Amino acid sequence: MIEARIEGNFSRDITGIAPFDEAGPNDLTFAVEPGFLARIAQSCAGAVIVPDSFEISADTPDRPVLLKTENPKIAFFKMVSMFFPDKEYTPCIHASAVIGSCFIHGENTLIEAGVYIGDNVKTGNNVHIMPGTYIGDDVVMGDDVLIKPNVTIMEKTTMGSRIIIHSGTVVGSDGYGFAQNSGRHEKLVHKGFVAMGDDVEIGACNTIDRGTLGKTIIGNSVKTDNLVHIAHNVKIGDNTLIVAQVGIAGSTTIGRNVIIAGQAGITGHITIGDGTIVGPCAGVHSNVGENQIVSGSPHMPHTRWRKMAAVLPGLPEMRKKLIRLEKQLKDMESVIKSRNQE
Amino acid sequence: MIEARIEGNFSRDITGIAPFDEAGPNDLTFAVEPGFLARIAQSCAGAVIVPDSFEISADTPDRPVLLKTENPKIAFFKMVSMFFPDKEYTPCIHASAVIGSCFIHGENTLIEAGVYIGDNVKTGNNVHIMPGTYIGDDVVMGDDVLIKPNVTIMEKTTMGSRIIIHSGTVVGSDGYGFAQNSGRHEKLVHKGFVAMGDDVEIGACNTIDRGTLGKTIIGNSVKTDNLVHIAHNVKIGDNTLIVAQVGIAGSTTIGRNVIIAGQAGITGHITIGDGTIVGPCAGVHSNVGENQIVSGSPHMPHTRWRKMAAVLPGLPEMRKKLIRLEKQLKDMESVIKSRNQE
Amino acid sequence: MIEARIEGNFSRDITGIAPFDEAGPNDLTFAVEPGFLARIAQSCAGAVIVPDSFEISADTPDRPVLLKTENPKIAFFKMVSMFFPDKEYTPCIHASAVIGSCFIHGENTLIEAGVYIGDNVKTGNNVHIMPGTYIGDDVVMGDDVLIKPNVTIMEKTTMGSRIIIHSGTVVGSDGYGFAQNSGRHEKLVHKGFVAMGDDVEIGACNTIDRGTLGKTIIGNSVKTDNLVHIAHNVKIGDNTLIVAQVGIAGSTTIGRNVIIAGQAGITGHITIGDGTIVGPCAGVHSNVGENQIVSGSPHMPHTRWRKMAAVLPGLPEMRKKLIRLEKQLKDMESVIKSRNQE
Repeated sequence: MIEARIEGNFSRDITGIAPFDEAGPNDLTFAVEPGFLARIAQSCAGAVIVPDSFEISADTPDRPVLLKTENPKIAFFKMVSMFFPDKEYTPCIHASAVIGSCFIHGENTLIEAGVYIGDNVKTGNNVHIMPGTYIGDDVVMGDDVLIKPNVTIMEKTTMGSRIIIHSGTVVGSDGYGFAQNSGRHEKLVHKGFVAMGDDVEIGACNTIDRGTLGKTIIGNSVKTDNLVHIAHNVKIGDNTLIVAQVGIAGSTTIGRNVIIAGQAGITGHITIGDGTIVGPCAGVHSNVGENQIVSGSPHMPHTRWRKMAAVLPGLPEMRKKLIRLEKQLKDMESVIKSRNQE
Repeated sequence: MIEARIEGNFSRDITGIAPFDEAGPNDLTFAVEPGFLARIAQSCAGAVIVPDSFEISADTPDRPVLLKTENPKIAFFKMVSMFFPDKEYTPCIHASAVIGSCFIHGENTLIEAGVYIGDNVKTGNNVHIMPGTYIGDDVVMGDDVLIKPNVTIMEKTTMGSRIIIHSGTVVGSDGYGFAQNSGRHEKLVHKGFVAMGDDVEIGACNTIDRGTLGKTIIGNSVKTDNLVHIAHNVKIGDNTLIVAQVGIAGSTTIGRNVIIAGQAGITGHITIGDGTIVGPCAGVHSNVGENQIVSGSPHMPHTRWRKMAAVLPGLPEMRKKLIRLEKQLKDMESVIKSRNQE
Repeated sequence: MIEARIEGNFSRDITGIAPFDEAGPNDLTFAVEPGFLARIAQSCAGAVIVPDSFEISADTPDRPVLLKTENPKIAFFKMVSMFFPDKEYTPCIHASAVIGSCFIHGENTLIEAGVYIGDNVKTGNNVHIMPGTYIGDDVVMGDDVLIKPNVTIMEKTTMGSRIIIHSGTVVGSDGYGFAQNSGRHEKLVHKGFVAMGDDVEIGACNTIDRGTLGKTIIGNSVKTDNLVHIAHNVKIGDNTLIVAQVGIAGSTTIGRNVIIAGQAGITGHITIGDGTIVGPCAGVHSNVGENQIVSGSPHMPHTRWRKMAAVLPGLPEMRKKLIRLEKQLKDMESVIKSRNQE
């Protein structure tokens, strides 16, 4: 199943699976990082999945069985799936689900208790919608979509295939858009929608606003962590990763293969280039090019930020030194002056 | 409908509505900012709503029809409402809604599937509560209230008229209040409530805590973005805008016409004066007067923060320079000293 | 009930309860802090709960009745509970709740409308699950658990006794874990769970991820505020307080009796020692020992941060002064040089 080359003899059955430091003699585990690989001879694990290139000295008789493979982490998690298989489900629309008119769905559909589905919704094959979730009118989903409990997907959202949306998330809320009219905030109607590509995973309690008129776009293979805010008309490129509690303001464009670390904030109407990394808690206030690493609030190049951050705690001493130097200089000037007058 | 003065001849039907850069020959769009107004002659749009004062040179034969009006943005969004009318609804209480005792509601009420309504709830006319929403005991709402799906409104909350609450939001959760008792955190019961004025809009996944004993007050025309936290006994003045991911700690008073930008944090038991603007990611730790602009964490006047932030990345060079100067000064002192001894 | 010593005569009935500044002649209130205690003689309150040690001068005839007790705050909130008793409930499983197979529950169980309970769920005595909440398969709860409306508890979560979980919260969402495989983000299955101790209170709209394989642990008497994010395999020690909008990244261990103030972010795979306080908006990027106070982003000792923060706004002037000193020094050097040449 994981196409591994076996090194050593199984003296015991492997009946469990565990992290490296918790694995016992009947457990399978894995090791990739040098720190773990160095400790394999001492490990109590029954078997360890390791990289192809890993070699262990022959004089360690009691060591675990080694399973050599190209990508041990992925191989391990494939084994995890085998040890803890997903619950099988019988396709069904629960009697307590409320289904609108013209619902067209594919094969192997499971709509659980208390789900609400609006009018003209279309879903592909192998779609599973868990209890308490709301799906608005005209929503379209591809195949292999899993929506966890208590999710809200507002009208007109489009979703590709192989999508997971975690609980508490809201997709398609109105953007934050008001116009001033004689001192009042007048609401601008939001009639756009959210368009997601394929292979998207959205964490728990995200808020993704619909476009004002056009689309808010979540590209293919975008993965968001929990409590992420994505405002109206934001465009997120393929393969981009957005870590917990990040906020992205309206109409900003994020490139492909970008990583935005936790709690960073990105202002509106800017562009972040492909391959760029935004550090944790960064405040990005203007365009950032491709393949940059930026940190800090306001943001700056990461290497500069690191140097700055290292100096920052010494700021009070810098100030004292500066005042001392100023005084010394003044003293010296008066010495020189007095000499001149001599 | 929008009371505009028409300039030019409609050679084509207007059948759609679009943002400026996406508008085609059959689309209506709008332009307010100079950057857009300058490009109207080149626009493919069929018609553009522009400010009354806008003039275009006569020698641009192929330009779009102009619709001159006082507030083009508001006029445009009125047209958007016309192009995308809200779905009409038939007043109804869905069979799957669970309604407590003594529910008193006005005309044109729509309670959708799976809604829960507690005891002694009173709602005005044109109230629409979407699927999966929970309304606790003794909640009172005015007219024209729209509660989106999967909202939680806890007991005793009072709401004015013309209110919108987006999905995932919790109104009336217990505040974070514990007393130390022999080394244990003892929960203080929270028996107050949340009181909202008129014309309030609350974004998705907000958390607004009830007052400990008294009220948490959300003033008239307050608009919050997504993932905003408002703690117990906070008072927010009329017309104040609170952008995404802001947190306001307990018992703080925010004035009228305040703007709090995204991810800012406001500490507890302080006052922020009317008309003040708090910058993005700011950390406000003490009272701020009226009509101030503050930024940074800890906060300072915005103009000072801008200067400080501009100098910040150069801090490592400042430090080097300071060390160099110190050395030069020492060298010079010894030169002077040796001279003195000559 | 609160074992207080009464000082003064009740000339009026006490019929209400109120905060110090709002209390009228028929209200009970409390005072602990010196600022309030100093103003008792002027207070309109009918009665005030005060510390045992508090003495008031005899010549204040019209002052409120004093109730002297050891912990006035806790005594006061006990009285609040008496004035505003919780609604009594009749044990019941609502007809609209959907209950999985093998549900084992204790006495005095209330499962409200629209609740979903998976297979093999076990709950103790006095468990109250409010409308719209989802409880996954194999969840275990102790006694005296209150789950507010629209909460999501995913499968295998274990919970002790005396637990409160507020609305919108998600417990047991998948962690944010992907492996790179030929340029794609491959999802790592998450099969661990969340384990909570006793006396835990979780605020509204929290997201607590399950362990990847093992557990995410929430210790006894941990209290979280709203919108808190706790990632996979985090361990939080007993009695720790986590204020609103804090984020804790994966596999980090937080000690006992820790306080993490609002909007702080804690990076992954680090340890924070017992009794440590993390300041608001801090960014903690490396291990912190026991009984420390840290602030700032990146974090530093709190006393250092305070000094640094006080100097920060003066940074532009420091820079100007530095440039001026540099020039003066250069001028002086040339003076000295020219003298040397004389």
